[in-house]
Amino acid sequence: MHSKQASTPTQPDSIPAIPVLCVIGTGLIGGSLSLALKQQNYCGRIIGAGRSEATLQRAKQLAIIDDYDTSIAAAVAQADMVFVSVPLGAMSAVFEQIKPALKADAVVTDAGSAKQQVVNLAEKIFAEHSQRFVAGHPIAGTENSGPAAAFAELYQQRRVILTPTTHTLASALEQVTAMWQATGATVERMDATHHDKVLAATSHLPHAIAFALVDCLASMDDIDEIFRFAAGGFRDISRIASSDPVMWRDTFMQNREQILEMIQRYQAELDIIYQALQSSDAASLQALFTRAKKSRDQFV
Amino acid sequence: MHSKQASTPTQPDSIPAIPVLCVIGTGLIGGSLSLALKQQNYCGRIIGAGRSEATLQRAKQLAIIDDYDTSIAAAVAQADMVFVSVPLGAMSAVFEQIKPALKADAVVTDAGSAKQQVVNLAEKIFAEHSQRFVAGHPIAGTENSGPAAAFAELYQQRRVILTPTTHTLASALEQVTAMWQATGATVERMDATHHDKVLAATSHLPHAIAFALVDCLASMDDIDEIFRFAAGGFRDISRIASSDPVMWRDTFMQNREQILEMIQRYQAELDIIYQALQSSDAASLQALFTRAKKSRDQFV
Repeated sequence: MHSKQASTPTQPDSIPAIPVLCVIGTGLIGGSLSLALKQQNYCGRIIGAGRSEATLQRAKQLAIIDDYDTSIAAAVAQADMVFVSVPLGAMSAVFEQIKPALKADAVVTDAGSAKQQVVNLAEKIFAEHSQRFVAGHPIAGTENSGPAAAFAELYQQRRVILTPTTHTLASALEQVTAMWQATGATVERMDATHHDKVLAATSHLPHAIAFALVDCLASMDDIDEIFRFAAGGFRDISRIASSDPVMWRDTFMQNREQILEMIQRYQAELDIIYQALQSSDAASLQALFTRAKKSRDQFV
Repeated sequence: MHSKQASTPTQPDSIPAIPVLCVIGTGLIGGSLSLALKQQNYCGRIIGAGRSEATLQRAKQLAIIDDYDTSIAAAVAQADMVFVSVPLGAMSAVFEQIKPALKADAVVTDAGSAKQQVVNLAEKIFAEHSQRFVAGHPIAGTENSGPAAAFAELYQQRRVILTPTTHTLASALEQVTAMWQATGATVERMDATHHDKVLAATSHLPHAIAFALVDCLASMDDIDEIFRFAAGGFRDISRIASSDPVMWRDTFMQNREQILEMIQRYQAELDIIYQALQSSDAASLQALFTRAKKSRDQFV
């Protein structure tokens, strides 16, 4: 405190880029953003908000947020930037609560893993204020959830995709971009529909695959033994099946068409392996495995 | 050298448990066994053998083997223990070359990832000597292959499954068990058919899933962008698609029935997700994801 009062002109108290940030949903995604921005002294104050007071208390104990309000409207009323990190299924209700409380120039952004429906919702609910809404999606996460899972480094060297529309204000887009860059992330922009297609392939389909694998094995008779002998391959492939079921239910529902298409494509691919094996076509199996190995090796 | 000559009675030159070990196939699996046993001074001499002289030279350069012979028969003729770590498809030909050269009391074991067909082959080809054949499978590996991928710690705290038959000599089983224990592995025994069922579920199916995922995405138009945005989930789930295609072709062919059954089960499970999503049945999706998360969390 003393050092602040004694600060010289060469070390002024800097004005924070975001005077008041409101984080709605203080789990892995919102909590990690808060921690990263705190580390950079990027915000004057960070207020948490959400449904569960226990979660907010935990987030405050962990110094993820400075304070909290169980009334989303009350928390938002003070905010220059509002970050909505709730499951996609809760987005509509949260937007409705935010809308009447927003300061005129407050910027709103989110972290939903499907974007077209969020963009549609924002335009419908925020109306004129949707100019200051910037849909976003950090391509980062772990299979853990809740405030205790949050850590400041989550976004470092990760990508964040923003999906502005033709109505989005450049100033709002810049503010959200700068906020994410402060966490160490690289920010990219693309069309919401294109985002949803790319993510269906790279993230949503892998989650479907992992959930299906674990549930498939868990229904077998000798499940204890099967899990006992499961090696690294199973461990890796099933990791994301430990992800939050509600969040993923909502992601699937909101990116339904694209995910259905990807599951179909994937089933067709798996069927090629099945058919080759059934007809003892070793050459086709080897060709497919070789092609896959080559692609995977190029990816890493 | 001097210290050896000057060794006191309390530090005698110990007689190695295996005077001469012959390793046929000096890649990840055979090479890692050699390195682990060398670290324990478990063998008097380790001779490599295999089809490719370049591989054998590389293995010798890396001090994985003491020497090599491109004639499998010549290498085997000197050996007290023969370890066959070649793709399953090469097993029959290698067994045929080994058979006439084996010392009367030489023990033979392998590392194939499907066991029933190997056991059948051994009984057919080795005839009487199949008493001294112990089928085995170390549940360990990485997606890398070749001598350079080998490392002494690969088997530490991993499981090795041996699948003896009613004809297997207890002494042979003990020798193979002790050899694996010297690498830091835990040895378990089970019936070959049961092994093949458990491994189809825990290892072979996950490989089918990973190969199919990578090949499915690689066939899409915007593959470069898709791989650019692929996050940790895809990285983990696809890792084992970098595995050796020939080895996996052979594993699939040799455990064909069990793998076909597992792919069918898995396709049915994926179809449950597809159907739930298609009918917008959020409750069923959540129930399945929750069940899978619970099983996965119990596994770790």
